[in-house]
Amino acid sequence: MNVSEKALQVHEENHGKLEVNSKLSVKTREELALAYTPGVAEPCKKIAENPDDSYKYTSRGNLVGVISDGTAVLGLGDIGPQAAMPVMEGKSVLFKEFADIDSYPLVINETDTDKLIEIISSLQYSFGGINLEDISAPRCFEIEEKLKATLDIPVFHDDQHGTAIVVASGIINSLKIVKKSMSDIKVVLNGPGAAGTAIIKLLQELGVTNIIACDRQGILYTERPNLTDPHKIDLAKTTNPKQETGNLEDAIKEADVFIGVSVAGALTKEMVKTMAKDPIVFAMANPVPEIMYDEAIESGVKVMGTGRSDFPNQINNVLAFPGIFKGALSVRASQINDEMKKAAAFAIANLITEDELNVEYVIPDPFDKRVVEAVSQAVAEAAIKTGVARTTGGH
Amino acid sequence: MNVSEKALQVHEENHGKLEVNSKLSVKTREELALAYTPGVAEPCKKIAENPDDSYKYTSRGNLVGVISDGTAVLGLGDIGPQAAMPVMEGKSVLFKEFADIDSYPLVINETDTDKLIEIISSLQYSFGGINLEDISAPRCFEIEEKLKATLDIPVFHDDQHGTAIVVASGIINSLKIVKKSMSDIKVVLNGPGAAGTAIIKLLQELGVTNIIACDRQGILYTERPNLTDPHKIDLAKTTNPKQETGNLEDAIKEADVFIGVSVAGALTKEMVKTMAKDPIVFAMANPVPEIMYDEAIESGVKVMGTGRSDFPNQINNVLAFPGIFKGALSVRASQINDEMKKAAAFAIANLITEDELNVEYVIPDPFDKRVVEAVSQAVAEAAIKTGVARTTGGH
Repeated sequence: MNVSEKALQVHEENHGKLEVNSKLSVKTREELALAYTPGVAEPCKKIAENPDDSYKYTSRGNLVGVISDGTAVLGLGDIGPQAAMPVMEGKSVLFKEFADIDSYPLVINETDTDKLIEIISSLQYSFGGINLEDISAPRCFEIEEKLKATLDIPVFHDDQHGTAIVVASGIINSLKIVKKSMSDIKVVLNGPGAAGTAIIKLLQELGVTNIIACDRQGILYTERPNLTDPHKIDLAKTTNPKQETGNLEDAIKEADVFIGVSVAGALTKEMVKTMAKDPIVFAMANPVPEIMYDEAIESGVKVMGTGRSDFPNQINNVLAFPGIFKGALSVRASQINDEMKKAAAFAIANLITEDELNVEYVIPDPFDKRVVEAVSQAVAEAAIKTGVARTTGGH
Repeated sequence: MNVSEKALQVHEENHGKLEVNSKLSVKTREELALAYTPGVAEPCKKIAENPDDSYKYTSRGNLVGVISDGTAVLGLGDIGPQAAMPVMEGKSVLFKEFADIDSYPLVINETDTDKLIEIISSLQYSFGGINLEDISAPRCFEIEEKLKATLDIPVFHDDQHGTAIVVASGIINSLKIVKKSMSDIKVVLNGPGAAGTAIIKLLQELGVTNIIACDRQGILYTERPNLTDPHKIDLAKTTNPKQETGNLEDAIKEADVFIGVSVAGALTKEMVKTMAKDPIVFAMANPVPEIMYDEAIESGVKVMGTGRSDFPNQINNVLAFPGIFKGALSVRASQINDEMKKAAAFAIANLITEDELNVEYVIPDPFDKRVVEAVSQAVAEAAIKTGVARTTGGH
């Protein structure tokens, strides 16, 4: 049986992947009176007096809503809310297994952006944080931004920022190997969708100034004909300092770093050969990357990362989101801001010591048990430092 | 420590009452590949091809959304979504403990009726059924009706129908004791709110024709001045066949059954003495009933039920909703219709044999382990019989 068949089997045999359990026993009248009426009236009254007590008397403080509209599920596209649920349940499994965070996966049958925002907003008091998942670009930008602007709890679109944080940590470590600095490198990013855009912004936060984005029509520059997508217009302005024009093969010349969140085969051996010395390539098209691992190494790539677990340096979001939410929830952060994302990227990168660091080990293993705690602590500290924490947690 | 203090303590110590657990282990790369990417793509694809497969590959088939807007929480009133959560978590605890059904409690920060309907509708593909809870009357009627009319999954407002079903089962058994029949009795119901209205409708379904509803202004009749609430206008038309006028003390004369879902002390000893022979009283105001147990018995009440666990014949919704949802989910019923509710009422009543039946035992104990299975089977059979079941389940 292959992975697909086995996956079907375990999903069917277990009737999905989640169960909800009571933390209290309710076997006697006395226990029933505490968990439900009449006892339950008391925490209700306390919360009515002081809404913040919802963190004290309900599960909310350790609870995340994993929410999707099913419009951009894995590489499968707009397959709808029902079909998105296995991924959302999977995400909830990871939240639990990697960070001991409870979560409810919810799929919403609404694709109108404003209505989706309204619906997700209306659910805010059920949760301590909201993880948006598999929402199509460019809608996902507006949805996340508006929710962040209005809600008091952390909102985090993992497809954007989770990926960006792990890529950033990989680049932080790769630059140590090739002895280059963020401010000096030229970066080319192919595929400025949800993840690509977030990667660009986070790298800029980390000091990269020379970054060029390419889509199917080539390099993004402000005067490019037919550039109508607002987030691409914005990218064209904030990237590409020399306003270069042309295609990926023009952009890639003398680039120090290539980041692909695009399609299989987008980066050729020939293109790699035109890159600067010691090229760094993160090729994350799934399941087949922009350039295959062996081809990349043969063409002179120094550090190569992919989305796959069968090659070194796997970019896996599970390195980021569990610890990020754990840290944010631990100090009741009102948001997950750029400083917290940067702190997470450095925390992941710094788990690898200078002695351990090598071209096949710039990113920790997804099952490295130290990751979640390191990320959580760094994120909590950054939240406190930037004034978005409402408690000091255990930190 | 009293119940209130203990309840606060257990809520705080446990950080709420629920946790979400994975049914799959995710400790290795192989397990991760089945629960999440790449394996998870396979059930997604299957569901995209056939949306009904969401019942096969996700937790949906055994999952209920416990949803409230916090507008009518216990006897506390409109205390808002955050403060409603302890009750919703409590309900989820009961779903799990009494019927092994998973549920997500959600509180929605929206009180506009149309928007609330839209929001709940948008969540339908996340669940196998929806239990509405603590939504204020008369909004709750429209909300439930519209959701039932548009959604493919069972929608059940427990405050209405759960209570109605248990009261009905109590009356079915009480009538056996006093040897009267549904078609002959006069019933007076005080407090035609959410529960009261549902009780009236279910008793009518069971054959009661002579039923009179009273609110704070007295008997409901069609010509009553200032009768503006649509559901009360409707009740005035469908109840009170002789269109009697006056107050509760007028209505109660020669009544066989009094049902109170109103306020402490509403029924006096003097009123009871004007009732027909062998009066039956279900006085469910909480925590202090419409007439105290001892007073009722002294005044000649034959069968007395209350909402309290310290008197005989406790009307407790937990006798109904776990089995009702279990039965409905087991055959993937598209709704919970009147026949299913009636079947549940008879299933609860019939658990008490003729030999066991006595004035202090017309309703089974909430912890009677036979209840959930009996209700579930009866509800599933009624669903199949009325053509709303989409599978035949194990039944």
